[in-house]
Amino acid sequence: MAENIAVGIIGAGRIGQVHAKSIAYEIPGVEIKTVADPFLTEEIADLMTSLGAKRVTRDYKEIINDPEIEAVFICSSTDTHSPLSQEACLAGKHVFCEKPVDLDIEKIKETLAVVKKSGVKYQVGFNRRFDHNFASVKAAIDAGKIGDVHVLKITSRDPAPPPVEYVKVSGGIFYDMIVHDFDMARFLTGSEVVEVYAAASVRVDENIGKAGDYDTAVVTLKFENGAIAVIDGSRKAVYGYDQRVEAFGSKGSVAIGNDTLSTAVISNEDGVTSEKPKYFFLERYMGAFTEEKVQFFDAIKNGSDIPVGGFDGLISVVIAEAAKRSAAENRPVKISEITDIDGGWK
Amino acid sequence: MAENIAVGIIGAGRIGQVHAKSIAYEIPGVEIKTVADPFLTEEIADLMTSLGAKRVTRDYKEIINDPEIEAVFICSSTDTHSPLSQEACLAGKHVFCEKPVDLDIEKIKETLAVVKKSGVKYQVGFNRRFDHNFASVKAAIDAGKIGDVHVLKITSRDPAPPPVEYVKVSGGIFYDMIVHDFDMARFLTGSEVVEVYAAASVRVDENIGKAGDYDTAVVTLKFENGAIAVIDGSRKAVYGYDQRVEAFGSKGSVAIGNDTLSTAVISNEDGVTSEKPKYFFLERYMGAFTEEKVQFFDAIKNGSDIPVGGFDGLISVVIAEAAKRSAAENRPVKISEITDIDGGWK
Amino acid sequence: MAENIAVGIIGAGRIGQVHAKSIAYEIPGVEIKTVADPFLTEEIADLMTSLGAKRVTRDYKEIINDPEIEAVFICSSTDTHSPLSQEACLAGKHVFCEKPVDLDIEKIKETLAVVKKSGVKYQVGFNRRFDHNFASVKAAIDAGKIGDVHVLKITSRDPAPPPVEYVKVSGGIFYDMIVHDFDMARFLTGSEVVEVYAAASVRVDENIGKAGDYDTAVVTLKFENGAIAVIDGSRKAVYGYDQRVEAFGSKGSVAIGNDTLSTAVISNEDGVTSEKPKYFFLERYMGAFTEEKVQFFDAIKNGSDIPVGGFDGLISVVIAEAAKRSAAENRPVKISEITDIDGGWK
Amino acid sequence: MAENIAVGIIGAGRIGQVHAKSIAYEIPGVEIKTVADPFLTEEIADLMTSLGAKRVTRDYKEIINDPEIEAVFICSSTDTHSPLSQEACLAGKHVFCEKPVDLDIEKIKETLAVVKKSGVKYQVGFNRRFDHNFASVKAAIDAGKIGDVHVLKITSRDPAPPPVEYVKVSGGIFYDMIVHDFDMARFLTGSEVVEVYAAASVRVDENIGKAGDYDTAVVTLKFENGAIAVIDGSRKAVYGYDQRVEAFGSKGSVAIGNDTLSTAVISNEDGVTSEKPKYFFLERYMGAFTEEKVQFFDAIKNGSDIPVGGFDGLISVVIAEAAKRSAAENRPVKISEITDIDGGWK
Repeated sequence: MAENIAVGIIGAGRIGQVHAKSIAYEIPGVEIKTVADPFLTEEIADLMTSLGAKRVTRDYKEIINDPEIEAVFICSSTDTHSPLSQEACLAGKHVFCEKPVDLDIEKIKETLAVVKKSGVKYQVGFNRRFDHNFASVKAAIDAGKIGDVHVLKITSRDPAPPPVEYVKVSGGIFYDMIVHDFDMARFLTGSEVVEVYAAASVRVDENIGKAGDYDTAVVTLKFENGAIAVIDGSRKAVYGYDQRVEAFGSKGSVAIGNDTLSTAVISNEDGVTSEKPKYFFLERYMGAFTEEKVQFFDAIKNGSDIPVGGFDGLISVVIAEAAKRSAAENRPVKISEITDIDGGWK
Repeated sequence: MAENIAVGIIGAGRIGQVHAKSIAYEIPGVEIKTVADPFLTEEIADLMTSLGAKRVTRDYKEIINDPEIEAVFICSSTDTHSPLSQEACLAGKHVFCEKPVDLDIEKIKETLAVVKKSGVKYQVGFNRRFDHNFASVKAAIDAGKIGDVHVLKITSRDPAPPPVEYVKVSGGIFYDMIVHDFDMARFLTGSEVVEVYAAASVRVDENIGKAGDYDTAVVTLKFENGAIAVIDGSRKAVYGYDQRVEAFGSKGSVAIGNDTLSTAVISNEDGVTSEKPKYFFLERYMGAFTEEKVQFFDAIKNGSDIPVGGFDGLISVVIAEAAKRSAAENRPVKISEITDIDGGWK
Repeated sequence: MAENIAVGIIGAGRIGQVHAKSIAYEIPGVEIKTVADPFLTEEIADLMTSLGAKRVTRDYKEIINDPEIEAVFICSSTDTHSPLSQEACLAGKHVFCEKPVDLDIEKIKETLAVVKKSGVKYQVGFNRRFDHNFASVKAAIDAGKIGDVHVLKITSRDPAPPPVEYVKVSGGIFYDMIVHDFDMARFLTGSEVVEVYAAASVRVDENIGKAGDYDTAVVTLKFENGAIAVIDGSRKAVYGYDQRVEAFGSKGSVAIGNDTLSTAVISNEDGVTSEKPKYFFLERYMGAFTEEKVQFFDAIKNGSDIPVGGFDGLISVVIAEAAKRSAAENRPVKISEITDIDGGWK
Repeated sequence: MAENIAVGIIGAGRIGQVHAKSIAYEIPGVEIKTVADPFLTEEIADLMTSLGAKRVTRDYKEIINDPEIEAVFICSSTDTHSPLSQEACLAGKHVFCEKPVDLDIEKIKETLAVVKKSGVKYQVGFNRRFDHNFASVKAAIDAGKIGDVHVLKITSRDPAPPPVEYVKVSGGIFYDMIVHDFDMARFLTGSEVVEVYAAASVRVDENIGKAGDYDTAVVTLKFENGAIAVIDGSRKAVYGYDQRVEAFGSKGSVAIGNDTLSTAVISNEDGVTSEKPKYFFLERYMGAFTEEKVQFFDAIKNGSDIPVGGFDGLISVVIAEAAKRSAAENRPVKISEITDIDGGWK
């Protein structure tokens, strides 16, 4: 029987806990060796221990310097993703880095250069690609069921806006929210974006506007292969987390709806009522959080390609920057205006 | 008992026949006095007679000059809409004019000036406003069920492209097809468009491209009230006539699907299959074609306002022109760049 | 051009008016010559005249004795169906008789004997066979899409119970309501019922129980071809007129839902709400009322078979009687216990 | 921190493995101490060890006699359920027993008497009560959303028939399959069955008929509270595992559909196709298998009532026997004909 893969997790906040739980409960052959978090609490330490962590510390160096640890999950704050990624790679660890790799495009490129040199597996946490619904759209397209994709429509609505403080440091709606949809659009069309037009507004909370961000946006993407994608995003859908896509092509269309807690439909004098979409991203995407790691560990074990890598992390941020500029200047912005993405980053 | 309203129909092609049939079968208190068509065939004459037409002629002047005729339906080719509208108005007839009033914005304004002076009722044939599904979206919005509209999404796909010869004279996809959706977006948001951005491509038939038109388009509209609309249009959906809308607002969303010939769902080894959308616009919109006329004749009888008038005809063509220019120049185009719409046309 | 078929309508109540309207508006080549009703009011007379009736009278003999009238619609009270059917047949008229032909099985047989001898077309008003949804189930079965039918499930719920006075003379829930479903079950299975088991109760209105009837019933039917059908009926579904069927067979299933006034779906904090079923049978079955007559007049013109005839009228009442007896005696009742149906009635 | 509850599992076949996996992966605070199976293979032993079992043996006595083991799962063949239940209870263990407790009603009563005397928790594995969909129907009924239940409809179709050898020993379709639906009907109506009528046939596989069983059945249940339930069951639905329920009452209805692997809908020339129901009971009910144990262990820890107990195990078999007799004798059979259930078994 093969040895378990020993894992270190840097950052024990919400997303770090998600990864720890699915490793503990869902993924055989992997064990959590060490969890590091500078703001470690007793409660978190207890949780991580109950999930099998052998060591809990405030010092991430205990992970980087541990020769038994093969893979590192970077779940700390965004500004640490790049430097930690580089340290881990240079220490020969495989890295699973939460998105975004960085808000600064040049730093991402720097990190990708280190990844390339070190030869480790480097996966970026675009979990939605692994969601059963989105994956079924990809499968239908790849199977030729809708022919060539002409138009792709993505709906991306959060149930409630984040705190304004978060918006101020996150890079804004294109960086912290719609970046997932940029990745999804590339994934589903199988092509690269050449130009972005974003119409954005403040309709949900004027404080978001005062912080220099938008809460409502409609983004049009033109792709190399001729496909056009349109993403509508909102910080607040009162009925829950609304994540849908429809791909329309030469031979038909494929569309997904939201998952619900049950299929129950109640008919009474008021109408015919079914359940709202699952409210929270963890409810909706729990399976996806597991599946992305299953494929990450498979790639480590079998030497196969990882499913979503550094270039995907880079280009999604480049598109976000183009969208931000487009909204600010009210004009279509070419990807090539933002940065050179042809420099071998793929 | 009130006298029947006597109607004249100019143009006995497909849409003229639609109006004749629904007057004959569905609308009490109205009778077809005369039908005029320069290309009249015996077959059409027989049909119109069986629908109750008392006279069938090649000469539309027999309608204009008949003092008994109160209302005229203009169903002839687009280039005749303006002059016939003006003649009929000057003769004191109420006019129901098929869309578009004209491809030339100045001519529409000219016609609207004549309408205004003559004081007749002048309705433009934007039938979709009267469709039970679209009307239910309007009713939900007006009842405050989704709060303020933030984003409006319209899907508009024809089952098959028109002949290239038609495309050459129709003004193109924005004028002959998406113009309906421009009107719908104004109707549902209850606001006026200020700016248009159109991403368009040729994916269905390259001959459409050679004729200078597009067959696929995604159009973003910004409205005075802050709403953003996005319309995706295609000349060809292999599964049928796909006409949907989703309005998303501060308190929720309302969406409509397509009508089908039955609610049957078949489950077998291949999956769970329901019916395609009704294939043809006459199947889908027959009820709407009747309802628009019911309201037209009500306005005549009761002196009430007509539901969709000359300004609606004008502004939809202005938006189409803005979309065409936007696609050609790849930039957002302001409505105010196209023409002055504040000159009392409303 | 062929002469119009002249029609007489006996009985100008709700169902008589339905037939008059659809003849007037929807069916070319047919005209209403005379309408007879012993309780004729001025209002009804005006209505019928506006629908084209040339003569309105209290005396049905004016129809029977009019040699110009080819077809008679019998829309009077149930107890007159048999004698009027016989009179009309003997006068050589084709007959469209509302259901049931009679509450007395022997009288139905007597009538069928007259029909047979006179050689006219005799159609019974089982309109649901012509509903677009039910017809699509029949089409799927006939096309072999679900293989052999193993189980058929019919849901039949009225929006509100009829007056108790009606229940007292109608023959009860099996005769006045579920009789439609007995016919539907025969139509869809393409087989004859051999045995009936009915579980029935009073849950909606105890006055219905005091009148000797039930308001809730579940009826199991065994068919010659081995199919089993189960019908659940209720006098009152607060959400509207609920008429569905599901056929399950060796190769799959086909199911229909209800029609709604629109496809609108509203998502908000309370859930995801769509429209209730159409509330009233005229809303739901208007198309079916037209289609049944289209086929009736086609049979007259072309000499083809009528789609639903005297035997269907007979057997459905026999099944109703078996169901009534089953509920009363709490045991399965064979059709052969009720009457001999093999005596050449088909 | 509380001590873990130590569990023994008797029977390591399919259902034993299901319980072991969900204890290992999904339920904190519980550990598998010993697994016993007389037909233990190395493969199964390895699996159970990887799931945390400390000991794997062929001798179930090692579980019964282990004072550290608090709870025993009985997952062995049906004929051993009663004696093992009794042994475990007498040894003071809490028991989770797979259904049915026994095919012999007297033996079930004997076991229940032992359970009662020993004072342990005794849960029977009617997992469907814990399924998110069925549970949502129960919640809607309990919340009064549909008022009093008038009619309950349950659809229960397996994707494929079991081997005929299984049918010969299982007690037949009412004992091995529809027994779940009998329990569900009691659970949802909150009332006890008084009478059963079963119409059954052989349509799927004539070998099932030769073995003395049926593969298709429609069962009507009358309840103490006046509700009528109807269950349609089939051994073979080619499109997958079809498990639905609709409850209809004085204030409306609640219905559930099946779960699918994704919400994807493909529209093309052939129609609009969505996914089939999940094919296999483990796919559909995995969450329910976990939830039933969560509640079982909660009852042990907190001394609360178990959610489904010995009486539920008894009465469901009594109903199955009544259904079997009803089908054989073609008459409604009263529960009181089968056995006395009022003898304090509840």
